[in-house]
Amino acid sequence: MNPNSKSAGFQLGPALQALIVRADQALAKALPSEDRSPVELHRAMRYAVLGGGKRLRPLLVYAAAHALGHDGSSLDAPACAVEIIHAYSLVHDDLPAMDDDDMRRGRPTCHIVFGEAMAILAGDALQALAFELLADGVDSARGIDMLRVLGRACGAEGMAGGQALDLAAVGRKLSLTELEHMHACKTGALIRASVAMGALASGADPTTLDALDRYAHAVGLAFQVRDDILDVEGESDVIGKTAGKDAAADKPTFPSIIGLDASRARLSELTHIALEAIAPLGARTELLVELAHYAAERQH
Amino acid sequence: MNPNSKSAGFQLGPALQALIVRADQALAKALPSEDRSPVELHRAMRYAVLGGGKRLRPLLVYAAAHALGHDGSSLDAPACAVEIIHAYSLVHDDLPAMDDDDMRRGRPTCHIVFGEAMAILAGDALQALAFELLADGVDSARGIDMLRVLGRACGAEGMAGGQALDLAAVGRKLSLTELEHMHACKTGALIRASVAMGALASGADPTTLDALDRYAHAVGLAFQVRDDILDVEGESDVIGKTAGKDAAADKPTFPSIIGLDASRARLSELTHIALEAIAPLGARTELLVELAHYAAERQH
Repeated sequence: MNPNSKSAGFQLGPALQALIVRADQALAKALPSEDRSPVELHRAMRYAVLGGGKRLRPLLVYAAAHALGHDGSSLDAPACAVEIIHAYSLVHDDLPAMDDDDMRRGRPTCHIVFGEAMAILAGDALQALAFELLADGVDSARGIDMLRVLGRACGAEGMAGGQALDLAAVGRKLSLTELEHMHACKTGALIRASVAMGALASGADPTTLDALDRYAHAVGLAFQVRDDILDVEGESDVIGKTAGKDAAADKPTFPSIIGLDASRARLSELTHIALEAIAPLGARTELLVELAHYAAERQH
Repeated sequence: MNPNSKSAGFQLGPALQALIVRADQALAKALPSEDRSPVELHRAMRYAVLGGGKRLRPLLVYAAAHALGHDGSSLDAPACAVEIIHAYSLVHDDLPAMDDDDMRRGRPTCHIVFGEAMAILAGDALQALAFELLADGVDSARGIDMLRVLGRACGAEGMAGGQALDLAAVGRKLSLTELEHMHACKTGALIRASVAMGALASGADPTTLDALDRYAHAVGLAFQVRDDILDVEGESDVIGKTAGKDAAADKPTFPSIIGLDASRARLSELTHIALEAIAPLGARTELLVELAHYAAERQH
């Protein structure tokens, strides 16, 4: 039996578990109702977002704000926005023309259930909804900064750009630097935006924003290294997608470029960088600390 | 010879022609350079936006602001944002899973040139860029209102929702009300947002916003009625896409539902509604008046 069984997995503590419930409730409320037209589009949008998921990005919004002494309801808008962006990106990444994935989170992917056209549209509408929610749910002075951060994170210099680099990398031999740059864009940009938005909602000063950004950059990369390690050693039923899929698709991964041991060492190093970055922030960083460990030690 | 020859077409006056140049220059500057990575994504984004187009939406931003006595450079951000959203929507609408169009504006569509995956990503990155530009280019108090308007116009209750209704309508018999509702979402929402953003940038009061919104709603619908009429009677080389395509694809159109004569009558009525709505706004509505005529009388 593989030692990474589900029961041995890293468990989030009660505070973060409660924040997952909070995020899920806020998301269910933020998404358009299936009772209203266009029903099929709304169904596809809800399916894409509400089907589970780790909720790492909302947790980072809440945890960064918590570290700065802010736990208010004004965090739900950015928390929902980043998760909705993440969900849309998965819907589009899974499309036949992209990664062509049939399963996600243990369920058929959005285009398998709703068809390709509706999956494209659901992703498009989700991206718009994220910006609308943010513009609706935050006060104007901080809101405009948060919208700028989110826009940049989603675009050609961020998530979409990273996906373009990822597509271009299939079958090519990347250097470690190139691989890390690709991930810094593809998943790192939105993770950094999540932390930045929690901090901006809390009125963080530039020094604090900078410390949190170093944390977020390291955690984002650690999350990806862990993903690649799990792809090698995880069980499909635990990680919720096909193990070994990246290798089979000839996608560059940390283990394929630097080996499994060096990947584990890099993971430790990134966790260390993340924890060191937030050490000066004081007593309320416990949720950020927990999330850094979660990113590096999770079993799925 | 068809009487709608290119030379007989409606010509925009010098003020609007100059604003097209202004919009084109602002767009060329706003889009990411092809010199920077990811090059292919940036190329696809520029191809999608800079390949001509009527620039109706930026013109409406400028014209609405002009009507309220505002012509400042702060209009370039919303003008670019609406055009970039429009361009992204065309890229996604043209995809094989959607309308499966090979030609647009007399050139091969984005996915024909760059492949399907890159076209999906270019559309996604363009949507993000529009919000980023707007957040970057406007002051915070008005900006947040404009971002909210743009977000709503792009999402499930607006453009993406309209496209979902359009997909669901293929092969079905729609009523005139259903057809107008579909277009009010699919193209009308962004046209109304364009006018609203020009007005918001100019500090319009609610009564003025309401008058301009009635204008925009009518112009948006008129534009679509004209499109459907041109699809019946236009020449492919003039309209830049395949004439008769909607009928061939069994898409509901105004002429197919109410006939060509009633479509022309509806077009006149909508133009009348648009002009009446802005009549109380005073002396500087001349560009809005011209655009209302253009939407209804254009030859391509």
